[in-house]
Amino acid sequence: METNWLTKFPVPLIDPYAANCPSRQILDLVGDKWTSLIILLLSDGPKRFSMLQRSIQGISQKMLTQTLRSLERDGLISRTLYPEVPLRVEYALTPLGETLCAPISAIVHWAEEHFAEVAASQATYDARSSEVS
Amino acid sequence: METNWLTKFPVPLIDPYAANCPSRQILDLVGDKWTSLIILLLSDGPKRFSMLQRSIQGISQKMLTQTLRSLERDGLISRTLYPEVPLRVEYALTPLGETLCAPISAIVHWAEEHFAEVAASQATYDARSSEVS
Repeated sequence: METNWLTKFPVPLIDPYAANCPSRQILDLVGDKWTSLIILLLSDGPKRFSMLQRSIQGISQKMLTQTLRSLERDGLISRTLYPEVPLRVEYALTPLGETLCAPISAIVHWAEEHFAEVAASQATYDARSSEVS
Repeated sequence: METNWLTKFPVPLIDPYAANCPSRQILDLVGDKWTSLIILLLSDGPKRFSMLQRSIQGISQKMLTQTLRSLERDGLISRTLYPEVPLRVEYALTPLGETLCAPISAIVHWAEEHFAEVAASQATYDARSSEVS
């Protein structure tokens, strides 16, 4: 049984620092690496499952299925079944999902721009730690 | 032994969709809920451990310690020890950490603005699922 915040917190406090604030769970949701990559891929148009799987290297079929279902439940993507032979299923961003593109894209660009600085800092930190120990 | 991306990927491919791209690990790092909340708290000035723990409801002492150490290793925050009695330790954003404030703040604001829509979508989805099963 998955938690539903609407029934659990009918008058929500919007304060992600509060332990019981539903916005905090959303932070986990949108912070997920697979979520970010799927949302960004769908930002340039609907895609089939196989296309998503090919594009996101290293994601397992099970993880992709789970993440897509979770995004559909959250109202961020839609799943459309086309009754053709063979059956065609396409995933697309909903209007709500589209509002998430800009913030996620900012995070992904940050990661692309700054990963080398982070890695350099880690190397320095680890070298210092091994000197001490 | 923690992985260091700089030595592992001397000529990095900046492509978060690639399985071996270091920017993807950074996505996990900055996507962490505790990381987001700590970075935002420090964005208005240095804080002591006890202040951070009081501000972020529900975080355990162990999790806060681990997250702060990890953020220090990543070069996003600094830890300064003031040789007073009693000892004072303060955490502050580094210049690199400051560059992360805007993207993280965009995500947190998205969560604050849209959590009710997400919760409503989950309720509809769950009601539909229980009808089917």
